[in-house]
Amino acid sequence: MSSSYEAPVALMRLALAQAAQTSGAHVIEGYGETLSAVAEPVLEGAARFAAEALSPLNRLGDRLPSHLELGGGVVTPPGFTAAYRRFREDGWASLSAPAERGGQGLPMLLAAPVTEMWAGANLSFAMCPELAVGALEVLRAHAPPELLERYAPRIASGEWTAAMDLTEPQAGSDLSLIRTRAEPHGDAWRLRGRKVFISWGDHDLTDNIVHFVLARTPEAPAGVRGLSLFLVPKKIPAHGRLEPNDIQALSVDHKMGIRASPTCLMAFGDGEGARGWLIGRVNEGLACMFTMMNHMRLGVGLHSLGLSERALQLARAYARQRVQGHDASGASRAIIAHADVRRMLLTMKALVHAARALAYTAAAALDVSQRAAEPSAREKALRRLDLLTPLVKAWCSDTAVEVASLGVQVHGGAGYVDDSEISQLYRDARIGPIFEGTNYIQAQDLLARKVFRDAGAALRTLLEDIGQAARALPQDTSDPLWLLREQLLQEAARLGETAAALMARPPEPDLIGAAAHHFLHWLGVLAGGWQWALTAANARAVPEAAQSRSLIATAAFYAAHILPRARLHQAVIERGAQALAAPPAEDI
Amino acid sequence: MSSSYEAPVALMRLALAQAAQTSGAHVIEGYGETLSAVAEPVLEGAARFAAEALSPLNRLGDRLPSHLELGGGVVTPPGFTAAYRRFREDGWASLSAPAERGGQGLPMLLAAPVTEMWAGANLSFAMCPELAVGALEVLRAHAPPELLERYAPRIASGEWTAAMDLTEPQAGSDLSLIRTRAEPHGDAWRLRGRKVFISWGDHDLTDNIVHFVLARTPEAPAGVRGLSLFLVPKKIPAHGRLEPNDIQALSVDHKMGIRASPTCLMAFGDGEGARGWLIGRVNEGLACMFTMMNHMRLGVGLHSLGLSERALQLARAYARQRVQGHDASGASRAIIAHADVRRMLLTMKALVHAARALAYTAAAALDVSQRAAEPSAREKALRRLDLLTPLVKAWCSDTAVEVASLGVQVHGGAGYVDDSEISQLYRDARIGPIFEGTNYIQAQDLLARKVFRDAGAALRTLLEDIGQAARALPQDTSDPLWLLREQLLQEAARLGETAAALMARPPEPDLIGAAAHHFLHWLGVLAGGWQWALTAANARAVPEAAQSRSLIATAAFYAAHILPRARLHQAVIERGAQALAAPPAEDI
Repeated sequence: MSSSYEAPVALMRLALAQAAQTSGAHVIEGYGETLSAVAEPVLEGAARFAAEALSPLNRLGDRLPSHLELGGGVVTPPGFTAAYRRFREDGWASLSAPAERGGQGLPMLLAAPVTEMWAGANLSFAMCPELAVGALEVLRAHAPPELLERYAPRIASGEWTAAMDLTEPQAGSDLSLIRTRAEPHGDAWRLRGRKVFISWGDHDLTDNIVHFVLARTPEAPAGVRGLSLFLVPKKIPAHGRLEPNDIQALSVDHKMGIRASPTCLMAFGDGEGARGWLIGRVNEGLACMFTMMNHMRLGVGLHSLGLSERALQLARAYARQRVQGHDASGASRAIIAHADVRRMLLTMKALVHAARALAYTAAAALDVSQRAAEPSAREKALRRLDLLTPLVKAWCSDTAVEVASLGVQVHGGAGYVDDSEISQLYRDARIGPIFEGTNYIQAQDLLARKVFRDAGAALRTLLEDIGQAARALPQDTSDPLWLLREQLLQEAARLGETAAALMARPPEPDLIGAAAHHFLHWLGVLAGGWQWALTAANARAVPEAAQSRSLIATAAFYAAHILPRARLHQAVIERGAQALAAPPAEDI
Repeated sequence: MSSSYEAPVALMRLALAQAAQTSGAHVIEGYGETLSAVAEPVLEGAARFAAEALSPLNRLGDRLPSHLELGGGVVTPPGFTAAYRRFREDGWASLSAPAERGGQGLPMLLAAPVTEMWAGANLSFAMCPELAVGALEVLRAHAPPELLERYAPRIASGEWTAAMDLTEPQAGSDLSLIRTRAEPHGDAWRLRGRKVFISWGDHDLTDNIVHFVLARTPEAPAGVRGLSLFLVPKKIPAHGRLEPNDIQALSVDHKMGIRASPTCLMAFGDGEGARGWLIGRVNEGLACMFTMMNHMRLGVGLHSLGLSERALQLARAYARQRVQGHDASGASRAIIAHADVRRMLLTMKALVHAARALAYTAAAALDVSQRAAEPSAREKALRRLDLLTPLVKAWCSDTAVEVASLGVQVHGGAGYVDDSEISQLYRDARIGPIFEGTNYIQAQDLLARKVFRDAGAALRTLLEDIGQAARALPQDTSDPLWLLREQLLQEAARLGETAAALMARPPEPDLIGAAAHHFLHWLGVLAGGWQWALTAANARAVPEAAQSRSLIATAAFYAAHILPRARLHQAVIERGAQALAAPPAEDI
């Protein structure tokens, strides 16, 4: 199966329209016009670039990973520098960057399918420009004007890339343990410390890399309230030249997957100290970094989605051409005709579309939160975005692991050998639930901050939207969509009741910890069903459209095969907390 | 985490006793005496060998996989030949081989934990001797006396190993497509053909390798009824020497995991034809091969279980030493104190013990089916074994994928780098659901042959046993085990009703295909609960035993967190068939 990734443009177009509608993006002036003017050329152009320039490098990047050259920096796999050059020249780096920073200022909603495409074609490559988009958000929101002017246009154009430097050996999920120090020095700061797991921390695609580093200033308080954010370039632009800074990649991790993406151990200030500049205020680094983090979390969702789509493509193509077994008449048949292979492929398809529509909906909410004229519309969209961000990150990445695993299973033994792209996807997908905040961190964020903190208000609004979408489906019990309607209405009611019951309980130390994982997955499977309800209703309205029959059938499949997962999650939330709390640690 | 695999001998001992009891192994004369005489030295010795000789080679075998040397045969990773030599010398190869073939004739039940240990320490290594055990079964059941005498003692002693040659490029799950030819030639046959995915098809551990090859004789009917089984040695013993045969490994697959286990493309008869000898009768090869296959399926279950146990060990050790976050008082704490890490570890632990007890129960049933004096006892045990074999293969291997993935998640980023053994286990585990009959083949076997064919009789007996185990648990609703009792009783009743309803339906082409996967997993999660009920009841009877508290707590966890999966499976079986059948293949 050596075919290239093929962007599912028709389905993306549907999901775009659905997301704009669901998120009320029509309130943004000129939004609809922008979308209709540029969506087609952007989607077609990105699909071509993904298929022609990125997809062919994907297997190669897995076989010949990025590595550190002795005495030099990190070298990316063959073809990556040329592909990146073309990526920049074709203007893809600047797609969603603000026009005033030299970007094209396109909506995030339009960047979403493009981001999905990069990842579907080549996840390792896709991670690099995604960091730049997050960096521009941080700069826009928190950087002093001179830093913004000096760095943003270069990052927006793709001339320089960005890296996010949080983790240290002792500080992973717990950033309060960060030790990297920053001391004032002239007009800037000097940083000293080690950062691990830094994606694209060093490479040979560009002349410069702009690091965003969390560090402690002298006399900063302990914990996360003593963290400040610094911009620390690999090379310092001065007097029209680039001067070296005291930053070095000491090693590149050998990883299970995303091997072309260099994951670096970075040394800051092993010599005179790495020169850095403060972003935002002292001790407010974590809040600043969260601007980038939140963007990256949506990015992980979109990337996981792209990877899932690619796994579906590979499995479907294999199932169509692989002949095994025979039908009742004795004629041999492709394995796609077997019921269990259909089950696996339809599960993949049902999950991929749900993930896509949900992730795009979050991207549209981001646009509304930044671009709507009315503050109340911005505020409403921001609350929705806040709720959806952990869901998109965690549900889409867990889903990608499941979808890639099903893809391997459809391939049988052919999926277990290194020659197969699906075996790479299985390994690549496994990072999604881990980085940019583990999926439990997302689940905790969802339940503790996004549901409990506003007493369930944002959740209730979402559940109302889900109910409304369900009620638009047919009430006729013989209709294939009836089950979707019924299950969504029931599950939305049940989830709302369970959330209310959780909030009504006296606070216990592990109340959230015990319920969060299953709550996120319950809401995820329900939100996926919501998206299918919207898609199916749209498809029913245009029964003559080529895809409508397939979409309605897949929506019905989602209701019958995927939504019942909700029953599991509710049961565990209701009865599982005690069983989790009982055994002492030494008994585990 | 460089510690070695540590066999959980105390838990194995419990599971052994439970399996012997559940399978009624006391009817075998001298069985209990044998077990009590040798269990301790065997378990202790195997645990030591696994920890000292096999576990230290596991990471190495992943980094320096078995490979084909130009002009030579397959070379295993450094240390493997020495470890195998010691394995033979210490008598491990002959453990369960019949005494009359030079083996030690120990019960399969005792071989089960030993097999688990080999896989927990080094799955790639473990696969090699397991093939020998399956080969001895085939020889015992089907080989003419002269073949039996010539080959069995050498395989039993480990002097020679065995390989199972079924798959061809066009014939994977569908063996009817096998093309390898066998033509009569003197007192033997000449074979010509290619076999792919042959585990341990060539290697340097022994002088000789005995292949069991499915091939077609001249004028054999098409399909699986035209397959015959041949013994084809790499070298032919004659006149006290080993003469080369026309067999060659053409390549060794580069695989996602189990990299030390050489997966070979084998050429039979590229020259004058490979000399082979018939096992069983012409055209009855598939039935003969199933003797080996069924053994290998239990083997996959035991191996998957061993790997799961190792994943649990690694994750638990990491969670105990990795400090992140803090408790309410602000004191830092190991991540095992976090509720969600506990959820993951307890899920792993609950699944591992269930898989162990279930797989050992199948091994005990195998012993009874072969060794009981009473034919009716043998027959009853055989029916139980038939029912449990696909369940053990598929449920334990799917479980291992889940457990290894949870193990990665507990490790966070540290689990994604190649240095970590857990990242290897995640890749190693993924083969289990694929080989020795994909897990769907198992599910189909379970529902079509093991449930439908006897009109549910064997299933009903199992459900009665489950009900009996459940009723031995406390009825007091405040008892931590009450939920386990209630759920088992409910689920056993529901599963029985659903199976009866399926059998009562008019036959449809895809009735079994649409339900099989979820039926197997439903029965799997229920059977796992059955084993926990037995374990918990035993633990309650000895509350003073060190492990009892932990076992009762984990049984309660299984009820609250794992058994609710049954709700999902039933819902999909009841309402999912139509959604699966509806979309035409081009719509998927």
